[in-house]
Amino acid sequence: MSLHGEYDPQNIFAQIIRGEAPCYKLYEDDDVLAFLDLFPQAFGHTLVIPKRAAARNLLEIDADALCKLMRVTQRLTQVLVDELQPDGVQVAQFNGAPAGQTVFHLHMHIIPRLAGQGLGIHAANQAEPAELEELQARLVKRISG
Amino acid sequence: MSLHGEYDPQNIFAQIIRGEAPCYKLYEDDDVLAFLDLFPQAFGHTLVIPKRAAARNLLEIDADALCKLMRVTQRLTQVLVDELQPDGVQVAQFNGAPAGQTVFHLHMHIIPRLAGQGLGIHAANQAEPAELEELQARLVKRISG
Repeated sequence: MSLHGEYDPQNIFAQIIRGEAPCYKLYEDDDVLAFLDLFPQAFGHTLVIPKRAAARNLLEIDADALCKLMRVTQRLTQVLVDELQPDGVQVAQFNGAPAGQTVFHLHMHIIPRLAGQGLGIHAANQAEPAELEELQARLVKRISG
Repeated sequence: MSLHGEYDPQNIFAQIIRGEAPCYKLYEDDDVLAFLDLFPQAFGHTLVIPKRAAARNLLEIDADALCKLMRVTQRLTQVLVDELQPDGVQVAQFNGAPAGQTVFHLHMHIIPRLAGQGLGIHAANQAEPAELEELQARLVKRISG
């Protein structure tokens, strides 16, 4: 199993953390970064990642950093619920490619769900930049409001 | 949206916590209980729940209890990986029926994944008691070992 391997500092999330790649940022503090998924499985699909941990997956992060990650995940879930008013929300975290992981830096998915509307395929369809920008603006306003 | 509603103290997980309903228990401390899912989506499907919080979902639990829940979730994920050696592991948490939630007491799913093997439908097929008993024994031995 590939759950234990070497952390690749060139993965896209590491580049985003270092400011070398762009993202539709929603929230950032010293420990955690949250941004919109470029390939959303549903409208509002958000990712939350630890900034300091070179952790490929859940097994490689220390307890304190995991707590900080989950507190922001909880807060952003509330923000998405308040702003988008979905019928439900899935929170998911994939460890290893056979479990659906595509970027090997630990990340929590927050996926708003609408009744009767299925999920898009993971990492299949890129969202329109204009749509992501508008959504980012709404959510950032809600977070700071 | 039904994410905020009244907590039903007769839900099956509340009954399990109070010892009024049985479970294939894997781990328990003052704050957290882990047991095998009776309707596994994959072999080893485990549930981790907070014991003290009357929380229907992620939005209703305080930060400290959430941290404790996640630390046990992380630990049990490691146990499942060590004992079952899956190709990956999905960790998931559903908020609201449209997101797949069927029991309205907050719970984390830990679902071992095998390459090339799809997921069973959630809450569709009950596992054989003998299989669950044998699996419980293996995992409890691993946890205490």
